[in-house]
Amino acid sequence: MKGRFITIEGIEGVGKTTNIQFIQDWLTTNKIEFISTREPGGTELGEQLRNLLLHGGHVSNNAELLMMFAARAQHLDEVIKPAIESGKWVICDRFTDSTYAYQGGGRQMDVATISQLEALVHGAFQPHMTLLLDAPVEIGRARAAKRGAADRIEAEDLAFFNRVRDMFLNRAKQAERFQIVDATQDLSSVQQQIQVCLQTLLESPQ
Amino acid sequence: MKGRFITIEGIEGVGKTTNIQFIQDWLTTNKIEFISTREPGGTELGEQLRNLLLHGGHVSNNAELLMMFAARAQHLDEVIKPAIESGKWVICDRFTDSTYAYQGGGRQMDVATISQLEALVHGAFQPHMTLLLDAPVEIGRARAAKRGAADRIEAEDLAFFNRVRDMFLNRAKQAERFQIVDATQDLSSVQQQIQVCLQTLLESPQ
Repeated sequence: MKGRFITIEGIEGVGKTTNIQFIQDWLTTNKIEFISTREPGGTELGEQLRNLLLHGGHVSNNAELLMMFAARAQHLDEVIKPAIESGKWVICDRFTDSTYAYQGGGRQMDVATISQLEALVHGAFQPHMTLLLDAPVEIGRARAAKRGAADRIEAEDLAFFNRVRDMFLNRAKQAERFQIVDATQDLSSVQQQIQVCLQTLLESPQ
Repeated sequence: MKGRFITIEGIEGVGKTTNIQFIQDWLTTNKIEFISTREPGGTELGEQLRNLLLHGGHVSNNAELLMMFAARAQHLDEVIKPAIESGKWVICDRFTDSTYAYQGGGRQMDVATISQLEALVHGAFQPHMTLLLDAPVEIGRARAAKRGAADRIEAEDLAFFNRVRDMFLNRAKQAERFQIVDATQDLSSVQQQIQVCLQTLLESPQ
């Protein structure tokens, strides 16, 4: 039996890390083998690309977009697909929806170009479920600010992150795999909703 | 007046370095301002990507292709286009023809995908002249072997490099910008031919 591929999306400060930990605990409790990974990154090459992307000097928009998909191609080949083939669940902190949101929404790059690259790198291979943790940008930023120095992308302005959030919500309306979670609720309500989603996925036919 | 963009292509060991030096000397003699650069590389980001590509660990085919074009996007934005706009000539050791030859020919990746990425990254922007230094693979490899340890791409086998050479020759037949130079001739004949090409380019209308 193959594993499932779950991606966690959302702007900074919506609680991705906390809720990924909750998902890991749920999988452990349910005795489901899994790996937890992230984008950009997840492989040796991908982490090096991540470092260039987030902490390097000037990176042109096209270079950024192509590096994101380069890291993703390696991640899929080396980590995600083999894990799912072997029956493990894969929990991934950000995936292609983040590219649509940040490069397409935030940087206002051509969405058709992103679709072309998506088709090249993972075509019909899509997450089984995408949890979109959603909150107004002001709330997310206030939480994220407590974590210290911003990286190259976190340093963008409010209008940028509003475009990012809008693109996430827009995409969530277009595909059934999305589950939108209101991240302004108290944590126990958020996690109750996530648990229902996980249980439904576990019981759904592959 | 805008500058000209000259690319130098060919398999390993055909004398690219020697002849790039000859072109630089010719430009200096003719008091033409120029920059000399290379791919993958040519920018801080590009050189870091080059290092990952040539000396890193496992890189999937798609990741390699996307990183090549990421480095190229940065190179065009940061170096090549500004130089040409300012009136300088640009001499570039390898460009997109090498991607067709190595990834399309050598690795037998889909050429239509390479064309899509080319369209995304530099569309109608093409070299004014491409010098293809051509020699049988056996001759090139024998010369390249004298230079010491092979990088990740140089370590490929003979059939790989024959496909690379064939793709270069195939492309050279399809675009007027190509000048094929028989690199098995003695050096003075090679350079006489290159000089004629440069003089023609200098005198041609922009």
